[in-house]
Amino acid sequence: MSMKWISVLLLLQLSCYFSPGNGGKVLVWPTEYSHWINMKIILDELVQRGHEVIVLTSSASILVDPNKPSAIKFEIYPTSLTKDDFEVLFRKLIDKWSYLSKDTFWTCFSLLQEIIWEYSDCIEKLCKEVVFNKKLLTKLQESRFDLIFADAVGPCSELLAELLKIPLMYSIRFSPGHKIEKHSGGLPFPPSYVPLVMSELSDQMTFMERVKNMIYVLYFDFWFQTFNEKKWDQFYTEVLGRPTTLSQLMRKAEMWLIRTYWDFEFPRPFLPHFEYIGGYHCKPAKPLPKVIWRFDGKKPDTLGPNTRLYKWIPQNDLLGHSKTKAFITHGGANGVYEAIYHGIPMVGIPLFADQPDNIARMKTRGAAVRLDFNTMSSTDLLNALKTVINDPSYKENAVKLSRIQHDQPMKPLDRAVFWIEYVMRHKGAKHLRPASHDLTWFQYNSLDVLGFLLACVATAIGIITKCCLFCCQKIAKMGRKEKRD
Amino acid sequence: MSMKWISVLLLLQLSCYFSPGNGGKVLVWPTEYSHWINMKIILDELVQRGHEVIVLTSSASILVDPNKPSAIKFEIYPTSLTKDDFEVLFRKLIDKWSYLSKDTFWTCFSLLQEIIWEYSDCIEKLCKEVVFNKKLLTKLQESRFDLIFADAVGPCSELLAELLKIPLMYSIRFSPGHKIEKHSGGLPFPPSYVPLVMSELSDQMTFMERVKNMIYVLYFDFWFQTFNEKKWDQFYTEVLGRPTTLSQLMRKAEMWLIRTYWDFEFPRPFLPHFEYIGGYHCKPAKPLPKVIWRFDGKKPDTLGPNTRLYKWIPQNDLLGHSKTKAFITHGGANGVYEAIYHGIPMVGIPLFADQPDNIARMKTRGAAVRLDFNTMSSTDLLNALKTVINDPSYKENAVKLSRIQHDQPMKPLDRAVFWIEYVMRHKGAKHLRPASHDLTWFQYNSLDVLGFLLACVATAIGIITKCCLFCCQKIAKMGRKEKRD
Repeated sequence: MSMKWISVLLLLQLSCYFSPGNGGKVLVWPTEYSHWINMKIILDELVQRGHEVIVLTSSASILVDPNKPSAIKFEIYPTSLTKDDFEVLFRKLIDKWSYLSKDTFWTCFSLLQEIIWEYSDCIEKLCKEVVFNKKLLTKLQESRFDLIFADAVGPCSELLAELLKIPLMYSIRFSPGHKIEKHSGGLPFPPSYVPLVMSELSDQMTFMERVKNMIYVLYFDFWFQTFNEKKWDQFYTEVLGRPTTLSQLMRKAEMWLIRTYWDFEFPRPFLPHFEYIGGYHCKPAKPLPKVIWRFDGKKPDTLGPNTRLYKWIPQNDLLGHSKTKAFITHGGANGVYEAIYHGIPMVGIPLFADQPDNIARMKTRGAAVRLDFNTMSSTDLLNALKTVINDPSYKENAVKLSRIQHDQPMKPLDRAVFWIEYVMRHKGAKHLRPASHDLTWFQYNSLDVLGFLLACVATAIGIITKCCLFCCQKIAKMGRKEKRD
Repeated sequence: MSMKWISVLLLLQLSCYFSPGNGGKVLVWPTEYSHWINMKIILDELVQRGHEVIVLTSSASILVDPNKPSAIKFEIYPTSLTKDDFEVLFRKLIDKWSYLSKDTFWTCFSLLQEIIWEYSDCIEKLCKEVVFNKKLLTKLQESRFDLIFADAVGPCSELLAELLKIPLMYSIRFSPGHKIEKHSGGLPFPPSYVPLVMSELSDQMTFMERVKNMIYVLYFDFWFQTFNEKKWDQFYTEVLGRPTTLSQLMRKAEMWLIRTYWDFEFPRPFLPHFEYIGGYHCKPAKPLPKVIWRFDGKKPDTLGPNTRLYKWIPQNDLLGHSKTKAFITHGGANGVYEAIYHGIPMVGIPLFADQPDNIARMKTRGAAVRLDFNTMSSTDLLNALKTVINDPSYKENAVKLSRIQHDQPMKPLDRAVFWIEYVMRHKGAKHLRPASHDLTWFQYNSLDVLGFLLACVATAIGIITKCCLFCCQKIAKMGRKEKRD
């Protein structure tokens, strides 16, 4: 048997040997709060299926708690930041963002950028503390990971992927104006029927709504910067020793796991390296005690004997309870998906981030009533509850969404894990990467080609006009000459 | 229990009762030749899973043979056309199309349109023979189908879906210039990195190739008409008694099953109601006799005793044989997918339709050598064969494609059947339908919005200029007055 056939067979065999059962090694660059809570669901599933998962976390991390019993491993690096610094930062971020909606468009998004840049600077500090920590980096390099998995809203993973020479995979719910998904993921957002996140529009837009959506698109395309990109570009260029940008490295991500699905998202174009896994954290409910109330403060004296107070209740089990009639929610994507999964109509009181948009979507689909946190009265809340409970259309629409969520060729969590394992098995997914990633913005929009074609047409018209004029002059000249003769 | 809760429960129960196991009723509007061969694979699978499949076919059909033993049922309607008419038409179509490539761009596509319109007229005749056959139509209406399934290259199914008031689902490999997928399916085709079918370009285009692609896009968008649409629009308007168009009715399709996948297609945007099921007809090979040769003519005297002649050999089994080293193919999508499935490098001698494009794609991926049927010599063929057999990169690349084809979350045939059953279960898939279908072309391209915004900017500039001029004049006047005083 010749060498070439042996190499082909070896290739075939390798592909058979690296099956999910054998286990891969996944490095994770995590984010905090709800982002960590739902990323952990995927990590737990990966561990369950025999993979080794190592989360790279700072000593100041809030929710990523290495002391909690878990099969996930943690690699803790020292940071000059403290837990308090983080908590203050996040509280400020949430507080400021919650009050943004009261401002005008321009002030609102300028402030948003300011808040996000503060967060971005903090992440950059952590990232530096990792990549300039030689001992840690050597340890990571020697660990020979098969993949780095990260939430795309917290940069650094793309630099680590370069330094460790391993494939990169993102998960994301959204970035402001979908700027990351568009510019780093290559996702198209036709402004005529794809409402931009945070615009609170639906896909059925009036003319003026389409004008609004276009203004959002133009603003995010030409003005807004998700992170302080200049700083990141400089930092990445310095570390890699060659000119590069954050966006360039992010484009190298093999796949993007998007934490929504078509029961939530309006139908719109997406790319083969995008997988929509929304609601993967939901599961059938476990039984609950008969009467329950989550309450963290002093027990009210007027409380009846049939109400039991708990400091924490598993929301998913509560929503899946047969007697649950409605869900009062701030509209976080995780909670909204639990309501969709269990077919529960919602009263939404959104506060910040994607929450107003999430509730707007559920309202468009007839599964929610929306209230304004700053202006609502207790009567409004009561009326809203009465509406979603007594008007059967809300329950029907929630059940419709639930049917869409449940009726998929493969469960979203299984799909998420499949593609993570896929990227590890194949050491990437280059065949899914759109060629648009290699084009500049004017090439991507065919401006050079259209310019060239217009120039050709103009030249052709010019030459024809010149020829016509020349002929006319010749004829006129001959006419004059004949007259003279 | 109140009425509203009973209705909600009923809704839930209905969704449980209509499960695939209970069987749906599928009406099929078929096409001929390879289109029928691979549609039949899906239909057989549907029958296997307990569904009733009724194929609506004319008495002149060539391959759709109701006399062949099959669990698929046939509803045969009389036609004034004969089998001969059809065979002559298809032979003419194939002959003419095979020689098109020798012509210039303009002549080539004008001729192509002419050929396709001839085919379109023939299908229209059949369609009329169905919808004006009152007895047949009543029978179809009384049969209460759950779905109509059709190949999008042969119209009529969209009209039947309207008349029978049932959901419609398409399958398609391609339409010239992807015009149907774009204008009726809503699929975007960014000209900068999505090569148009029949351009034989890859997704890595030079500037001049992007110019070529743009010319193709402009030509198909503004000039080419896949069918004689005016005739169809008139016919559909007449039958339905309200103004409508072929394209409008086609847009109502719930889902599109595309007969390619990402081992074949270049990565590009698609929509949630498009499912890529390429290669669904492939299966593991069955054993073959030791030495074989498919030959239909007189046995040559010089034939050695170790060669056995067969009139027909199952191509899939042959390609899956462990000793198969290469595949000489005309490049039809079915054959190319069998080669991909079994990881066999190809020598492509394309003739017409998508064949040149299919081979160009396999060549780009390093799994095929292409020959020109009109100019090649026997030496060329021998050299091409030697190349794909002796240069290991061809086998390696074919095996790579094979790995992509095999490593999917769900087998393509299972996915095809899942979505057909899904549309039957849910009586459609409206939540996957892009809102772009309700926009006019200038709304879709945001031309009205951009025009409005430009007008606003122009007005603002105009007013500011006017104000400035007014102020300047005032100041000048005052200056003159002061001087005079």
